[in-house]
Amino acid sequence: MGRLLDTIDSPADLKRLPEEQLPRLCEELREKIIEECAEHPGHFGASLGVVELTVALHRVLDTPRDNLVWDVGHQAYAHKILTGRRDLFHTNRQYNGISGFPRREESEYDSFGTGHSSTSISAALGMAVAAKLDGEEDRLSVAVIGDGSMTGGLAFEGLNNAGINNANLLVILNDNNMAIDPNVGGMSDYLLDITTSRTYNRLKEEAWRVLGRVNRISPGARDFIQKIDNSIKSLVMKHGNLFEALGLRYFGPVDGHDVAHLVKVLRDLKAIKGPRLLHCLTVKGKGFKQAEIDQTVWHAPGKFNKETGEILREGATGGPPRYQDVFGHTLLELARANPRIVGITPAMPTGCSLNIMMKEMPGRCFDVGIAEQHAVTFSAGLAARGHVPFCNIYSSFMQRAYDQVIHDVALQRLPVVFCLDRGGLVGADGATHHGAFDLSYLRGVPNLTVAAPLDERELRNMMYTAQLPGNGPFSIRYPRGNGTSADWRTPFEALERGKGRCLAAGDRVAVLSIGTIGLEVVAALARCPAGSVAWYDMRFLKPIDEELLHDVFRRFPRVLTVEEGILAGGLGSAVLEFMADHGYGARVARAGIPDRFVEHGTRAQLLRECGLDADSLYLRLRELLDNPLI
Amino acid sequence: MGRLLDTIDSPADLKRLPEEQLPRLCEELREKIIEECAEHPGHFGASLGVVELTVALHRVLDTPRDNLVWDVGHQAYAHKILTGRRDLFHTNRQYNGISGFPRREESEYDSFGTGHSSTSISAALGMAVAAKLDGEEDRLSVAVIGDGSMTGGLAFEGLNNAGINNANLLVILNDNNMAIDPNVGGMSDYLLDITTSRTYNRLKEEAWRVLGRVNRISPGARDFIQKIDNSIKSLVMKHGNLFEALGLRYFGPVDGHDVAHLVKVLRDLKAIKGPRLLHCLTVKGKGFKQAEIDQTVWHAPGKFNKETGEILREGATGGPPRYQDVFGHTLLELARANPRIVGITPAMPTGCSLNIMMKEMPGRCFDVGIAEQHAVTFSAGLAARGHVPFCNIYSSFMQRAYDQVIHDVALQRLPVVFCLDRGGLVGADGATHHGAFDLSYLRGVPNLTVAAPLDERELRNMMYTAQLPGNGPFSIRYPRGNGTSADWRTPFEALERGKGRCLAAGDRVAVLSIGTIGLEVVAALARCPAGSVAWYDMRFLKPIDEELLHDVFRRFPRVLTVEEGILAGGLGSAVLEFMADHGYGARVARAGIPDRFVEHGTRAQLLRECGLDADSLYLRLRELLDNPLI
Repeated sequence: MGRLLDTIDSPADLKRLPEEQLPRLCEELREKIIEECAEHPGHFGASLGVVELTVALHRVLDTPRDNLVWDVGHQAYAHKILTGRRDLFHTNRQYNGISGFPRREESEYDSFGTGHSSTSISAALGMAVAAKLDGEEDRLSVAVIGDGSMTGGLAFEGLNNAGINNANLLVILNDNNMAIDPNVGGMSDYLLDITTSRTYNRLKEEAWRVLGRVNRISPGARDFIQKIDNSIKSLVMKHGNLFEALGLRYFGPVDGHDVAHLVKVLRDLKAIKGPRLLHCLTVKGKGFKQAEIDQTVWHAPGKFNKETGEILREGATGGPPRYQDVFGHTLLELARANPRIVGITPAMPTGCSLNIMMKEMPGRCFDVGIAEQHAVTFSAGLAARGHVPFCNIYSSFMQRAYDQVIHDVALQRLPVVFCLDRGGLVGADGATHHGAFDLSYLRGVPNLTVAAPLDERELRNMMYTAQLPGNGPFSIRYPRGNGTSADWRTPFEALERGKGRCLAAGDRVAVLSIGTIGLEVVAALARCPAGSVAWYDMRFLKPIDEELLHDVFRRFPRVLTVEEGILAGGLGSAVLEFMADHGYGARVARAGIPDRFVEHGTRAQLLRECGLDADSLYLRLRELLDNPLI
Repeated sequence: MGRLLDTIDSPADLKRLPEEQLPRLCEELREKIIEECAEHPGHFGASLGVVELTVALHRVLDTPRDNLVWDVGHQAYAHKILTGRRDLFHTNRQYNGISGFPRREESEYDSFGTGHSSTSISAALGMAVAAKLDGEEDRLSVAVIGDGSMTGGLAFEGLNNAGINNANLLVILNDNNMAIDPNVGGMSDYLLDITTSRTYNRLKEEAWRVLGRVNRISPGARDFIQKIDNSIKSLVMKHGNLFEALGLRYFGPVDGHDVAHLVKVLRDLKAIKGPRLLHCLTVKGKGFKQAEIDQTVWHAPGKFNKETGEILREGATGGPPRYQDVFGHTLLELARANPRIVGITPAMPTGCSLNIMMKEMPGRCFDVGIAEQHAVTFSAGLAARGHVPFCNIYSSFMQRAYDQVIHDVALQRLPVVFCLDRGGLVGADGATHHGAFDLSYLRGVPNLTVAAPLDERELRNMMYTAQLPGNGPFSIRYPRGNGTSADWRTPFEALERGKGRCLAAGDRVAVLSIGTIGLEVVAALARCPAGSVAWYDMRFLKPIDEELLHDVFRRFPRVLTVEEGILAGGLGSAVLEFMADHGYGARVARAGIPDRFVEHGTRAQLLRECGLDADSLYLRLRELLDNPLI
């Protein structure tokens, strides 16, 4: 017998299946996801956890007329497979392949593009209000949001606003008690509590048991008991629930792996009007044993053997470390020596390797949940009382905390050290996740030092420098992936703030680079005539090394700037500003990320696309070397 | 008898007063605030509302050892007067005077600088955790936050994290059911509900009344009633409260104008450990009749007659309108013609004049609360379903929603129109409120059109243009204050996206300006030799008018760029980038906001300080005209 899944080209096909075949379809979907992810690495655990929910949603909803928004979007693989992308799914996250996240351009079933956390309620509410304005009040908008994403302030803002807009909105809280790492915060404790203690149900049962004896007690007491019961009900169900307090009707919790029950519940909920929330309990990695056991590792495990569950590590061990691990080990070293250092991460202890320090110094590390804004302002509070917070946030997520960097840290010159992991092109996660903007948007912030290391040693030295007294707010960005040296644990050396260095002498063209993209410069230089190109590693974008720039502009009529960030407002612009302000007149060419969103692919593919690989840089240099000045 | 207030030079003096004199001190404080604000405009209503709370806090806390963080900081006038700034208070918000907000640089009693909303819980939690790390667990950190600020996502992130950190933190919820406009959202309804219905108290009283008859009913029923009562208590007080759900102990509500009671309650709360919240009911504008009645107008009324309560409007009526009103009236006009237009504001219907459209079309306007992130993503949701949202956010608050602009709007090319009020230097609100960064940080966002009008007519035309089909995500920034023309209701004219215009011919120097700062250029030009300086109003920072720039660089060896925004990455940088990319070699001078935080003062004072007033621009032009090229 063929696979049911092969007959499902759209949700319409799914709706035609007999109800009793749904569990089998779920099983096949799960197999498909396991198969594909074993070969083509992706976000694994989250998608396995919502297989039944996805089938039930497409069974009950009238997609794409009904709007379905997947928060973050890690978990949308089953959704993609069921909505016409089954046979394309092997291209997931690959160059020119389908995206690992929902994308409006990719399918009409992807109502809203996601990637960053906690956007779904706001977006779905916007759609629900649109339907209301359009007189299509039967059109349902659904946000599927994890309990981890629910800790983001944006999700709360959305809930708070949903409660007063009487729109056809269903929020599905996909509660697996995990973000990538275990979820933390009051909200998380609360969800566990309402799930496990089920206080209301116990009380109600008790009430009915006693009420069964009602004739044996006085009429006054009976009235009272009735009144108390109603009150409990109204209190617990209305005010006693955090979501009801905000104006959403609360339903659940329900078993998120019972597809038949989910279909029934969703049908019932579809018939109800107004903002409502279904609390759905799922297991991240459901159906793949190892993934259920170690949910953090299996969030995005890379390639694995689908039979044995062995994760296939790429590359040999003992090679260069990941930059995140250089950060993690270095921070621990620094924290051992400097008792004022504390570590802060918004829900990424594993992703940024703060877990290394966390293991030895749990009391000095803070996982604040998916809450970048809070991570920064909380760090500012710690710094205001004399601590030295290392606040690690992925570059693209730091966009969430821009105001806090300006208003709470830089304006007050508080010595917070920002470590921006995943700076530059991140590869398969694509447009939503590239750390493209940080150098540019941070350069505009007064009082902030903006640095980017060339390699692991420099990262260590910058971290060391940043925590020295008087060095104020300090930002260090470094890329995803591995470094270049197995021998990276070099002794610390204090860098002079705002000082670059010359790493190759030359007399015709100067290359100024910042960050690890300088390693592509090295490869390009190797192909240029010896002694023709001088190379400067700027180290600091801000303050920029004016002495170095004076020297460069006095000596070189041709300059190339290289940065793994957007061209608008970054290093190249800083160099041009300096040149203009000081009346120099060199020819300056700039290499960087162009003014469009770059999609997913391997880092090598994307560097080439942006003209930032060694080949492209070599061509830029040749052009400068060969062409006479205008 | 002299004023008590005159004897209070610090909280130590306040602590020495006999308890029964506190009400009199409150009265004097209130008089002082009324007196000063009548002469020197400031934030009035909020400070009047917390006079008793402020006195009680400084009476009970050991400031500055205990940390006291005022959310937003509008309400900190009594705090400033009591902490050594009584005799400086007449300089409030004036150039070189004290700031209208708490500032760490200004006083050790200002534990944390504020200005933007919803930061206090995160900052105070950081301080409380610092105290814990330092073994000073008796050191209390207090966040005073309004119910309006509580709708900001950052506040929720802080609460969620506070619930799991067992630190010595007290959150005081200053609940007056107002932001600047009446507070909106599920949270607001909820607070009103727990305040007014007091369900738990009623239930408890009823329980005790019935329990008084307990001997008359059976032992089983008695047990049951006892059990029910305990359950109610634990449910309502523990799980039944939104704050308790998040892990904070909840106390209140208490009358925020009973200073003796507040002192007692705060003493009790000081003795308790762990994260806790006091719900304090206050009246915005308390003690000044008109301010109590019309709280929105009296949030920041400008000068007024303290006897009659008459607000003294500056300038004659019938003159040029405020830019915000041009926005408000124009949006209504456009919305009448285009049924797809909707209006969105994060808690600023009066401040941005969306209330004009709101009055006629309440169903198409959305005040989403203090929630900039949600405002943007909610707008994206509406746009995804075919509506044209005009989302109005003050420039400096838009920093809060940078990620949402990039990730939810620009990446998906959704046709949201951002109207950024208060772009540029805002005057008395100072460093936290200047719209200094927007041009620079928005220029880096792909797919986004970034525009700024020269005057009211242009603002109208840009708004008209932005809502035309196919013009995609569009940002328009304009300043605080009044325009220049009483006759501004001109017919709409579609502008070509990305096209500037030449407004004055000249042959020696070209000035390129964007936005209303061009009006200073006009005044500077008037003093230059006739025909020497050409003036271009760029209109669009992005896409920039390349044809215009080719023409400029072909014709002019000297160029001055003028923008009311930071120099790093703004118009000047865009022009330099163009010049470099196309191999031109003019001398380019740039005028804009320098790389430091600009403090408060009048707009004229601050323009001069930044070299953006007509005099300074004239000198820059003279320099270019007089000096031979290098």
